[in-house]
Formats: sequence, structure tokens, C-alpha cells
Amino acid sequence: MRIVLDAMGGDHAPQATVAGAVWAARDFGVEVQLAGQPDVIEAQLRQNDVRGLSLPIIAASQVIEMDDQPANAVRAKPHSSMAIGMQMLRRGETDAFVTMGNTGGGLAAALLYLGRIPGIKRPAVGTRFPTHSTPGFCYILDVGANTDCRPEYLFQFALMGSLYAEHVLGVANPRVAILSNGEEEGKGSKLVLDSLPLLRSGPFNFVGNIEGKDVPAGAADVVVTDGFSGNVFLKTAEGTARLLLGAIKEGVQRYPVARLGALLMRPALVSASRKLDYREFGGATLLGVDGVVVIGHGRSDAYAVRNAIRLAVQAVERDVVGAIKNGLDKIHTHETS
Amino acid sequence: MRIVLDAMGGDHAPQATVAGAVWAARDFGVEVQLAGQPDVIEAQLRQNDVRGLSLPIIAASQVIEMDDQPANAVRAKPHSSMAIGMQMLRRGETDAFVTMGNTGGGLAAALLYLGRIPGIKRPAVGTRFPTHSTPGFCYILDVGANTDCRPEYLFQFALMGSLYAEHVLGVANPRVAILSNGEEEGKGSKLVLDSLPLLRSGPFNFVGNIEGKDVPAGAADVVVTDGFSGNVFLKTAEGTARLLLGAIKEGVQRYPVARLGALLMRPALVSASRKLDYREFGGATLLGVDGVVVIGHGRSDAYAVRNAIRLAVQAVERDVVGAIKNGLDKIHTHETS
Repeated sequence: MRIVLDAMGGDHAPQATVAGAVWAARDFGVEVQLAGQPDVIEAQLRQNDVRGLSLPIIAASQVIEMDDQPANAVRAKPHSSMAIGMQMLRRGETDAFVTMGNTGGGLAAALLYLGRIPGIKRPAVGTRFPTHSTPGFCYILDVGANTDCRPEYLFQFALMGSLYAEHVLGVANPRVAILSNGEEEGKGSKLVLDSLPLLRSGPFNFVGNIEGKDVPAGAADVVVTDGFSGNVFLKTAEGTARLLLGAIKEGVQRYPVARLGALLMRPALVSASRKLDYREFGGATLLGVDGVVVIGHGRSDAYAVRNAIRLAVQAVERDVVGAIKNGLDKIHTHETS
Repeated sequence: MRIVLDAMGGDHAPQATVAGAVWAARDFGVEVQLAGQPDVIEAQLRQNDVRGLSLPIIAASQVIEMDDQPANAVRAKPHSSMAIGMQMLRRGETDAFVTMGNTGGGLAAALLYLGRIPGIKRPAVGTRFPTHSTPGFCYILDVGANTDCRPEYLFQFALMGSLYAEHVLGVANPRVAILSNGEEEGKGSKLVLDSLPLLRSGPFNFVGNIEGKDVPAGAADVVVTDGFSGNVFLKTAEGTARLLLGAIKEGVQRYPVARLGALLMRPALVSASRKLDYREFGGATLLGVDGVVVIGHGRSDAYAVRNAIRLAVQAVERDVVGAIKNGLDKIHTHETS
């Protein structure tokens, strides 16, 4: 299997991207193709032990800068690492594309070079979110691609999310819910209320509304929402976890005996904070485009890059794109028969 | 000062409501009028030490049940504790109304019996949310009254929230932000983008977009949003805090030495989890109706009820309703001059 990595994307590129690629190539036995400026990548590779690994460099002369308007930059810079990587995926010269760059840029490049799966109205960005219950996470989408949505989009997000949860995450008959401001029927924004009849009719296990507090509790395996609310959800969770861990740290400073306690509790605290650490998940999956695309967190370190590549490997192995195409075919056959 | 409490509202009424009323009457030196079924309230009062306190019972024969459709029940039951309390506030027989009952019911009763402050298009429910930075909280609205909003509503929420933060929370020149899916200009749903020009023109210190993760970080004093996203924000924070504390507890179970650590850290952990405990804030304020109305959490215990009454006392003392009326007058004078 070959995965192309945008070696130039993310806050800590190229150090973190190249180191993460080396790590992934060793741990998962895949070829990681490094797209970017050859001299920069070579310098990084020399810092790593790459014996026995397949890490070819794919020259990409242009770089998308932090202050570029991402969607425009993708068009204006066809020789950027992001554009080159997507073109390779289009031509079948790789099995998946992974970037720690801007989500908007990744989405624009995917639409431009890969296009949507026929029948998909809008691609969505989906990510795992930790939960209390087995298997320890759910899948939430959209978390960023579509700020304003229509019921038909949410219906397709539900279909794609359900197929992803089943095929990639290994959840049998995933429970699909829609994020709302109350679990009772009748609660919801206009978008939620308008989407309910469609969602109830879908070829997936739709279980109704879910509140923000019940997502971490594990009340659904797939949570669909518009990209605005999905972003509010993810960012609020991130901020709250930081607030709580910060408050614990302050408390430890205030009570001297608690410092010894914190030392003894360290493994428990580390395992708890890891539960909410995006680095463990590696990133988000772009669903609905015609190829496997993973978009990692901009702040990713090498470990997060390794895990983003793992996400791509899993999506290729379980053929997510094929599963979505089949799922759409079935609906279409049903509708026209 | 007199505060009327819906003694029958909430999951733990009448025990928690009456005990909280006794507690508040003692701590804040106010009269708490207990609206509800006299025999039920009397039985509860006998469980408490009420010497020297003013806790008159206001007979209300009807009860709004958990499975009543709240807005309808308020109309259908004019002798419920909620309706009776609001009528007293309307007639000037009390200074504020406090309930642990349903938010929809409280809103419907307030609109029916108090009405909106002239010029206000939609009342909003606002609540304090904890932050890292001084003063340790911000104020977020709407968190439940208006699922779908228009820019004019958000403009008025910003005005009311800013006045509340200044007058009740004591924040000078409060920074007002709008919840969005990115802090950069250009980010936002259609509602956010359409609201920005209005918000920039307002007589308050508007600072732009805020992401969910920056709210707990303290990047704004007032956060405006529609009631759907506000609910997602609050409930997600609640669920995430529970997830993280649960994961810490699990970690402690797993590592034996961590159990001793947890014991030593107890005061630090308690002070941290208190930071996110709604019981400390006591509840939400209904802004934009013609009277002080506080709606506490349905699950409130006596301590939360006490703090909800404290919220009402503060809002009366600082004359929030008068401040909002003045604020609207100034805009109106400005517009017509």
C-alpha cells in the first residue's frame, strides 16, 4: 500500500510530517510518499533512521503558505504538495492522501482533483470522538466542510457515517443520531426538524435526536450535524477538557499535599487526558470524495502524523470509498425499482 | 426584597426547592415566597429550621406535570405555581420569579404574564460559563429560548448580554463575541456572517468571532449565539467534563497507587469539578422579558436552588431590567435623531 503525505502541511512541518511518515512506514509496513520540496525533505530524512523503509520523495515546487486563502491557493498553485498529492491519487499512483494542512485547502483540492463520488451532494469531514462506552468512541460528521446544510446533505452524512462506522470502525448496525438541543421529538432547529423524516427513511439504524451531553456518554455510534454545530461541538469539548485539566493543575498548586497525590495519580491522569487527545485519533476523514483523504490537526506532532497515516491505511484496507458507492447504488436501485 | 419561588418545579421539588429557599432566606436576608400546594410546602417547612425567616406560602392549586407540554400547560393551568408566581411579579407583589421547572414553560409563562420589554424582539436565556481567566466566567446567550435566530435577535442578545455583564457581573466594557466555527473573519454560518455588520455597529464592545475552544479560555466576556448552538455548547461542555472525570476515576481504579494519590488530591479535584458545576451558578437568566426571571437546572438540589435565588437577588439589586430599557432607549434616540 502507498500513502502520499503532504510533507509541507501543518504547523510543525516538515519535521513532524517526515518523522511521522518514518514512524508510520515502520509500524504499518506501508510506503509513504513524501510530497514537497526535495531538499527540505531530504534534510529531514537524514535526521531519521530510515533503513529498510520505503519513503520516496515526490517533488512539489510550490508551497501553500499560512496566509494564503486556501481554496484559491489550491487553484493558483498546481505544483503545491497538496495539489500534487491529490493528482497522484486521481491517477492511481497512490492509495490515499494525508495532510496536516488547512481543512478548507484539503477540501478544495479534493473537489478539484478527485471530485465527488457520483450522487454525493456534499462531502463531509468526519472524526472519531471519545465516549465512555464500548468501543470507546463514536463518529461525528460534518465537523467543518459545510457550514450551512440542507436535509439531503444530512441524510447523506448519515449514510456515509454509518458505512464508515460499520466498515472502518467495526461497529455492527451503528446507531445513527442527529445532534439537537434536546432528545425529545419536536426539539430541534428548523434544519433538524426538516431532516427527521428523511433520516427515518434511510437504510441505516436511525435512533433520533441526541444532546451534546449524550455524545460523550456513548448514546450513538454516528452523530450527524451541520459543519457549524459540529465545529462548535468539537471545539467546545477541546476547550472544556483544557479548562478542567487546568483547574486540576491549579488545585494541585494550591493544596501542597495534592502535589504528592498528583505524582501518584500521574498514570491515571495521563490515561484520562489521552482519552480526549486528538493525537490518538490522528485526524479527520473526508467522506464523499472519490478517494481516501485524511486531514490531520494543524498542530500535529510526529505521533499524530503517524496516527493520521494509520487512519488512511484503515480506510484503504476496508475500502470506504467502495462501501459508499455501493450504499448509494442500493438507494438508487431501491428508488427506481 | 421579595423573591417568589416555584416550589413545585424541578426534579427534586418540593424538598430541594423549600430547603433551598430556607437557605437563601437565611444567607441573603430576603423574603422567599413559596408558590405551590400549601399542605405539601408546609410539610417540607417542618423539616427545616425557619426561625426568624420570612417564607410565606402562596397557594397555587394546579401543578404542571413532567409530561405536560409546557407552553400549553402554562395556558391551561392559570392556577399553577408558575402562572401564579409570574402574575405576582406582573402586579408588583414580588421582585423576581425563580423556577427549577421546564425552560419552555418558564419562557411561555413569562411571555404570557410579563410580556417582552418594549422593543425587544425575542427574549433570550443567558448563563454564566466558567473560564480560566479573571473574573472566572463569561456570559453566554441564547442557550435555549430561540432555536432559530435572525441577525436582529443576535444584535439584541449582544446588547442585553453586555448590559448584564456590566451591571450584574461587574465587568467593565465587556468584550462581546459571536460563537463561530473559526475566529478569522469570513468564517461563520450564514446567520453569523449576516449578523456581523449589525454587531459591529452596536453600542457595545464587539470583538468578533470566537471558537468553542476559546470560550473556556476567557477570550470574551459575553458570547452571543442562537439557542441551538448555545445548547450544543453547554451540553457538550457538560458531557465532556463528565467524560474526563469518569476517565480519571477509571484510571484511578486501574492503578492501585493512584488511589492513594486520589485521596491526597481530593481537595484539588473537588475544587476543579466545582468549577464546571452548574450548581455553583444556580441557573440561567431570562433576559428581555419585563421582570427578573431565573430558571434553574431541573436537577437542582437545595444548594443550586439557593444559588438560583442569589442570581435573582443580584439581578434585582443591579436593576437589569431597567438597564436593558435604558440601553434600548439610547439606541432608539440615536436612530431617530
